[in-house]
Amino acid sequence: MNFASDNVVGAAPEILAAIVAANEGSLSSYGDDPVTTRMTARFDAIFERKVAAFPVGTGTAANALALAALTPPHSAIFCHAKAHIQDGECGAPEFYTGGAKLLTLPGEDGKIAAATLQRAIAEAGVGSSGGVPVAAVSITQASEAGTLYSPAEIRAIAEIAHRNGLSLHMDGARFANAVAALGLSPAEITWRVGVDVLSFGATKNGAMGAEAVVFFEPARGSELPYRRKRAGHLFSKQRFLAAQLEAYLTGDLWLRNARHANRQAARLAGGLRALPGFSLRYPAEANIVHVEMPEPAIRRLQEAGAVFHRRGGPDSRLVRLVTAFDTRPEDVERFIEIAGVASVAR
Amino acid sequence: MNFASDNVVGAAPEILAAIVAANEGSLSSYGDDPVTTRMTARFDAIFERKVAAFPVGTGTAANALALAALTPPHSAIFCHAKAHIQDGECGAPEFYTGGAKLLTLPGEDGKIAAATLQRAIAEAGVGSSGGVPVAAVSITQASEAGTLYSPAEIRAIAEIAHRNGLSLHMDGARFANAVAALGLSPAEITWRVGVDVLSFGATKNGAMGAEAVVFFEPARGSELPYRRKRAGHLFSKQRFLAAQLEAYLTGDLWLRNARHANRQAARLAGGLRALPGFSLRYPAEANIVHVEMPEPAIRRLQEAGAVFHRRGGPDSRLVRLVTAFDTRPEDVERFIEIAGVASVAR
Amino acid sequence: MNFASDNVVGAAPEILAAIVAANEGSLSSYGDDPVTTRMTARFDAIFERKVAAFPVGTGTAANALALAALTPPHSAIFCHAKAHIQDGECGAPEFYTGGAKLLTLPGEDGKIAAATLQRAIAEAGVGSSGGVPVAAVSITQASEAGTLYSPAEIRAIAEIAHRNGLSLHMDGARFANAVAALGLSPAEITWRVGVDVLSFGATKNGAMGAEAVVFFEPARGSELPYRRKRAGHLFSKQRFLAAQLEAYLTGDLWLRNARHANRQAARLAGGLRALPGFSLRYPAEANIVHVEMPEPAIRRLQEAGAVFHRRGGPDSRLVRLVTAFDTRPEDVERFIEIAGVASVAR
Amino acid sequence: MNFASDNVVGAAPEILAAIVAANEGSLSSYGDDPVTTRMTARFDAIFERKVAAFPVGTGTAANALALAALTPPHSAIFCHAKAHIQDGECGAPEFYTGGAKLLTLPGEDGKIAAATLQRAIAEAGVGSSGGVPVAAVSITQASEAGTLYSPAEIRAIAEIAHRNGLSLHMDGARFANAVAALGLSPAEITWRVGVDVLSFGATKNGAMGAEAVVFFEPARGSELPYRRKRAGHLFSKQRFLAAQLEAYLTGDLWLRNARHANRQAARLAGGLRALPGFSLRYPAEANIVHVEMPEPAIRRLQEAGAVFHRRGGPDSRLVRLVTAFDTRPEDVERFIEIAGVASVAR
Repeated sequence: MNFASDNVVGAAPEILAAIVAANEGSLSSYGDDPVTTRMTARFDAIFERKVAAFPVGTGTAANALALAALTPPHSAIFCHAKAHIQDGECGAPEFYTGGAKLLTLPGEDGKIAAATLQRAIAEAGVGSSGGVPVAAVSITQASEAGTLYSPAEIRAIAEIAHRNGLSLHMDGARFANAVAALGLSPAEITWRVGVDVLSFGATKNGAMGAEAVVFFEPARGSELPYRRKRAGHLFSKQRFLAAQLEAYLTGDLWLRNARHANRQAARLAGGLRALPGFSLRYPAEANIVHVEMPEPAIRRLQEAGAVFHRRGGPDSRLVRLVTAFDTRPEDVERFIEIAGVASVAR
Repeated sequence: MNFASDNVVGAAPEILAAIVAANEGSLSSYGDDPVTTRMTARFDAIFERKVAAFPVGTGTAANALALAALTPPHSAIFCHAKAHIQDGECGAPEFYTGGAKLLTLPGEDGKIAAATLQRAIAEAGVGSSGGVPVAAVSITQASEAGTLYSPAEIRAIAEIAHRNGLSLHMDGARFANAVAALGLSPAEITWRVGVDVLSFGATKNGAMGAEAVVFFEPARGSELPYRRKRAGHLFSKQRFLAAQLEAYLTGDLWLRNARHANRQAARLAGGLRALPGFSLRYPAEANIVHVEMPEPAIRRLQEAGAVFHRRGGPDSRLVRLVTAFDTRPEDVERFIEIAGVASVAR
Repeated sequence: MNFASDNVVGAAPEILAAIVAANEGSLSSYGDDPVTTRMTARFDAIFERKVAAFPVGTGTAANALALAALTPPHSAIFCHAKAHIQDGECGAPEFYTGGAKLLTLPGEDGKIAAATLQRAIAEAGVGSSGGVPVAAVSITQASEAGTLYSPAEIRAIAEIAHRNGLSLHMDGARFANAVAALGLSPAEITWRVGVDVLSFGATKNGAMGAEAVVFFEPARGSELPYRRKRAGHLFSKQRFLAAQLEAYLTGDLWLRNARHANRQAARLAGGLRALPGFSLRYPAEANIVHVEMPEPAIRRLQEAGAVFHRRGGPDSRLVRLVTAFDTRPEDVERFIEIAGVASVAR
Repeated sequence: MNFASDNVVGAAPEILAAIVAANEGSLSSYGDDPVTTRMTARFDAIFERKVAAFPVGTGTAANALALAALTPPHSAIFCHAKAHIQDGECGAPEFYTGGAKLLTLPGEDGKIAAATLQRAIAEAGVGSSGGVPVAAVSITQASEAGTLYSPAEIRAIAEIAHRNGLSLHMDGARFANAVAALGLSPAEITWRVGVDVLSFGATKNGAMGAEAVVFFEPARGSELPYRRKRAGHLFSKQRFLAAQLEAYLTGDLWLRNARHANRQAARLAGGLRALPGFSLRYPAEANIVHVEMPEPAIRRLQEAGAVFHRRGGPDSRLVRLVTAFDTRPEDVERFIEIAGVASVAR
């Protein structure tokens, strides 16, 4: 019953098998290898266009490299106040961009509303002779709250951004969960609605450690090879990252894994919200559930060995539960059951 | 009737005279000159202790160098949401620190309350495995709103800061106005109540272009010579900066100038607040007055040649008026009079 | 017959097995896992002291993080003119340090001589008011030329460095090859002779992608967790890096692999130098052989499918051959044989 | 008899007069003032084209901002091994560019030869998968050795640079001395022969503290306002910098000053080289003379109160003498005389 995060799990068997399979013979290093070539083809295929996809080792690296490609040092980036780039990456965006500034926006359900962005742009432009110009906006899909942007919401944000000279970045650490939940194609929630660059996550959904920076206009990624190398994120044996991503994008693995995680989260949400004293903080649309629950339930669950994080401090009754590709349905049921008993026991 | 800022004015005659006087003969460059030595002695004297004072050309440089000395790149700095370092310096703190993050705090009257800082520190420490550690807090004295921190307020902030391992920086772009208005010694509102480093402003109060970074524990400034040189803020003919600061601190010039500016602001505030439809947004405690006034008054004043900025956009009725060392009392009276006529004319 | 580099090979079977074994169940992310704990113990054991070892994904990351921990932005680092940090990492040291300067030193056989360092320090201190202070020296063991520093040579460099306030970094991308070739303990060529921080390489010697920054005074690594996270080199599923390093350091695997590679290089060097028209550029002391050979031999070998790099441009007759943990002796023999035939055919 | 540098002198009387004259009334800050407008017109006039000229306070700032505009962080800059940007600015180029790398080139008489540049570019392109791409070359006119590039030499460098995608920066800390000595127009040794951006110096030749970054293609300077502000080099009372530069460029002041300095240097060079045991290290073409002289002469001159620097350490017999706009001919004669006496006294 470990719902602490989708990164406490291991790698999917298909991913491990791909790594083992890639361990054959000598191959040119630094990405000049056939595995990378096949991975590239997979990215083009799932996005239905030629993209420039750069594998890296972590989501923080993907986000920071993507943002550095979009924004000069003397610029600002809008993001949600709870965005991972703001409070979960120890200043990586500032480091990689050379000191750009993150300007946080409020927003319900962990999402930025187009109107909020519009207003923030207007305000940023007023009397700001000494302010930094805003160069980009970053949204997270699925969001840190476990919610989803609809294509229309993304398009509205993209239009405002582009009209004002801003680029649109999407942090897709849980992109698969979003695609699976929305039942749309990857293209429909990215470049077709205005996303310029995507941090494509795989690690939280079954990879061992592989993400990619994806530019929908390949030319915009022209300097990424230098930035990636300089950051120490060009792996000499890149075949092992590429093999993970290739396997991930082959035969629907990524969506199968995501659907499973989403289903477990939906079941958790449904089961818990029905209990007296329990309520969902946000709609549970992907694989994250934020539940406010009675303190006795929290304690009972912890005593039963369930692992999860409280949000907002040690006394908070807000609990975040994250499911993964290998979450066992029986763990979900048991969690709900214990919570229910505790609830009644009050 | 130019109330746009205290930097639209020229230099005080005493400052110019000092520059002319410093133009005698050959002197060692880069600060190894007798003018700098005398300036240093003046700083020690007015702060009643040995300090390390580094002259630079602009307030932005002073702030950014001071913050860089206090904070590693992987850290955050608390400041007020309207702090000049946040929205008036085009990302200079981020540039100089190597990408530290400014975290803004709300606060009435342009000031940070100790309780707000306490809460923010507590929250920053919760669940922030990926967050940057906070290394400093920066307050502005007099504040951008034209208000003042009392010694007790500063001490409360300093105690919370130091107890939690944070350093305390004071942006003193209008430090003279604060000292003059509070009627306290410079020491009483800086190191005696816990300020670690001060950006000592002079340009807005009569200098031509000279500020200083002042470390109250000289050892903390040990790497500043390198940082300053590297930033292009070590002037070869430093005597001309030192001469300005020496003259500024000699014979009470700095406080005379500040008192004059403060008096004009007080007169403006008193005269305007008495008019129907006018109100002060913040207490006018130094040399800045924020007034909400009827639109016709704004127009009438502009037509009469008055220069000032609206705050909050072109349609805002909030006007900022800044007085300076050479603001003419007759301009103040005329401004009030025109405002009053417009007010009646409604 | 691929001698292009020791990173064109895959992973050793023991490493892959360890990865597979680590894929069991849920474990806390970001290094708070038992695999990392075991890895840490292995590092302490092989270095015969408590060290602070931080796993990262690439050697460039290890070097850049190590140097950033030793040097402020306003400083310089001495390294050999052919050091990998200078010409193989796309400016990573400059990026991570915030703009420190690499000052290159000449040196025979790819090594810095103590006397050269002494002279460079003396010169750097002369008339350099505007120069950056030198904060560190970096040496590579085994060197990029395939040569080795003896303990006495390292100690001499360390003494000069420390006497002048410089820290000593060792780029150990091929550290195992050095330890194996010298027949000394890891401690004897690192902290016992004055090395402060080591980039501990594993990828070139059988790991899939895992290196470590090793601080011999753990306190000096106190800010590394922040720098690593901020650089995107803290892996969420760190167990998979730790598993590689644990297996690498278990049961002599790392030295077995290195000995094999060294032996193949020695055989190559011995076989080739005996041929007419062939000569070794540097002593082949580890797993790299630099041979000058007749152009017909180069062509003949390429036609036979041998892969290797020319050094110094397309017309250069200087060829670099690198052996690895899985280099086949029959490939070595065949390479020598073809070279010999070509040589005779002249 | 202070020949230590051309920055030990004060400001020219015409410059001081202009500062005093600019101290009239309220003017918009941050460069939106008529003095700046007039200064801009002067720059356009002397360069015979529309340029983008940005005043800053120091030469280090000018150089670093210029280079940052030309080069991304992941790039390298060629410069002479003795260039001021390499050894006199404490890493300012690295700081401002975000970590670009300076690659030094050897060259006689303090100058880079076109052939050397050509060779270095060729070598940089070979086998440098991990090297940073070179983005710019920087030359100093007049050079740190006191020598001059002819228009043909500059053109040859520019052609090689541009053909290979590099920009050409000129450090013109002593640009006036070069223009005066060559008897050519400013355009003839800058944009007409391929210079892209110039650090236009004035401080060493009579200004109090004012330099400018000059882009010959104004569009290339489009982001400089942000970079300058962010670096703390946008002066609020910019009129005082602009006034210096306007006066400097008015009525031939800059060339008059430079001609005077050059003449004194020529006299020094001529007088000293004629003495037994004295020799010039470089041709003395501008206002710097490098003389090797007998140790007794050095001592005798120091005893007589002459101020100058030895180059190359405390025991070096190489002395650098710099003349300025206000160097007194009688000091020059006296220096030669004392040197001559000492020489005979041997």
